[in-house]
Amino acid sequence: MTPIYDTTYTKIKIKNIFLENKMTFRENYFDKITVEIDCKEKIFEEQSDFQKIEIFETKNFGKMLVLDGDIMLSDKDEFVYHEMISHMPLTSHPNPKKVLVVGGGDGGAIREIIKHDSVEEVILCEIDEKVVRTCQKFFPDLTSGLNDKRVKLAFEDGFKFIDSYTSYFDVILTDSSEPVGFASNLFKEDYYRLIKKSLKPDGIMVSQSETPWFQDAIMSDMTKAISNVFINVETYCAFILLYPSGFWTFTFASDAYSLHKFNKEKSDQLEKTCKYYNTEIHKASLALPNFVKKIVTNR
Amino acid sequence: MTPIYDTTYTKIKIKNIFLENKMTFRENYFDKITVEIDCKEKIFEEQSDFQKIEIFETKNFGKMLVLDGDIMLSDKDEFVYHEMISHMPLTSHPNPKKVLVVGGGDGGAIREIIKHDSVEEVILCEIDEKVVRTCQKFFPDLTSGLNDKRVKLAFEDGFKFIDSYTSYFDVILTDSSEPVGFASNLFKEDYYRLIKKSLKPDGIMVSQSETPWFQDAIMSDMTKAISNVFINVETYCAFILLYPSGFWTFTFASDAYSLHKFNKEKSDQLEKTCKYYNTEIHKASLALPNFVKKIVTNR
Repeated sequence: MTPIYDTTYTKIKIKNIFLENKMTFRENYFDKITVEIDCKEKIFEEQSDFQKIEIFETKNFGKMLVLDGDIMLSDKDEFVYHEMISHMPLTSHPNPKKVLVVGGGDGGAIREIIKHDSVEEVILCEIDEKVVRTCQKFFPDLTSGLNDKRVKLAFEDGFKFIDSYTSYFDVILTDSSEPVGFASNLFKEDYYRLIKKSLKPDGIMVSQSETPWFQDAIMSDMTKAISNVFINVETYCAFILLYPSGFWTFTFASDAYSLHKFNKEKSDQLEKTCKYYNTEIHKASLALPNFVKKIVTNR
Repeated sequence: MTPIYDTTYTKIKIKNIFLENKMTFRENYFDKITVEIDCKEKIFEEQSDFQKIEIFETKNFGKMLVLDGDIMLSDKDEFVYHEMISHMPLTSHPNPKKVLVVGGGDGGAIREIIKHDSVEEVILCEIDEKVVRTCQKFFPDLTSGLNDKRVKLAFEDGFKFIDSYTSYFDVILTDSSEPVGFASNLFKEDYYRLIKKSLKPDGIMVSQSETPWFQDAIMSDMTKAISNVFINVETYCAFILLYPSGFWTFTFASDAYSLHKFNKEKSDQLEKTCKYYNTEIHKASLALPNFVKKIVTNR
């Protein structure tokens, strides 16, 4: 079996497959565990310039988006990822006006970001326009934020796009797929340096940072790389149903702010429209189990 | 396909199976999701009077215990469940001396409980002696606490055993399998009333309480039943790798104490020997996502 991509973190993607005779989608995660999701039907499939896009109507989780064989989200659990990647940094910045999302073509992060009244401009920089257009067709709630007049779409390579800005953004979120193939560059120090350049001096970045149950090496390397670039680096956690192991992390970084000092009026207000995020969850997601502390402090 | 047990919460256990030709163990969880674990070999199999006991040497998670087709624990992740079911209540009781564990034949909870110096007597009441003896053979670390001189083993039905005590225990932990078959009685109000009778008036109980991603009905019913018996009922959460969805909950109940008021000296001390539990995790595990709050408050 040959890996499709040859990068630092290799994944044998060929194991992820829809078994039409059994109507199940199988995801094998880095040869560690395999999950099978019962489906009613595959409702969309297309090979874009960048990846294979598939959408399934599942038996238990509503519609499910799969990119290059990796489950990205389902109707049942997408709110966790999108609320947690957005509201944690946005309530921790005193006045976020300009926000960039790299990746995140499903639009879920945008839907959450525009809940913040201070935000004047949000750019979604997604390399693959097909992902955005497909999600707009099949996930109307998820993509509802894309019509907001503050939102701009840029179908470009994140690296190049970020490089064209200097001291511009208050918050940059990297809503990437796994560190294999073209997304692997989004887990490296060069990328974090570019982010820093395009952020205002007091800006904040957040990146999704995989699961400590399986990806301790990636998490460790990533935290080290980000710590070389930013003063304050904080890991936080969330329960995401369809991500491998259900234990997912995000990494926050800033030279000025901390997730520990956030606006409680805002977080209390957000609870009314959120299914996961609230003030207690904000604080709690920063507590790390001992084995995770060791990973992110490289002990 | 016929369910093996006919109870309130039916599970089609026949779908859980070891595929010898592929060396994988498949667990289907209440028809919601299927997980496959790669194995090197099955190292033990026996039908006891109560259930089928299997132990696998897995590829990624060390040894794995399976009872009646349900994954109970692996070397890789067992510490989460056992630390969290034990240290949360034991640091929240000012002076726990007499502790009962119902179920928990793998011994993991006992290993954690005996870390508390105040404890003078721990009884493990496990209906199936074969589980204890098998775990002693294959999981030496997990069962290491069973040799402590404060520990007594009772191979009896939990219901009957508890009924023989009145105002005796400080803490009772129910370390049960899923609410199907003979374990289903451990999720009902009659059982919680029995626990209350056998606890001292200021006693504490904790029961494992399934996952909110799939078992919202069970969690809701269980919280209601416990609230009919105890004044203070609190749900807490943990990331458990091999339990379905990875998002697991425990329910605490007491007429006198709360998990929010715990002994920080003890919790700080415990961090040194724990892989998951620490003071921050103690507080954080009590924060519930909005969708879980709704389940446990029956909104």
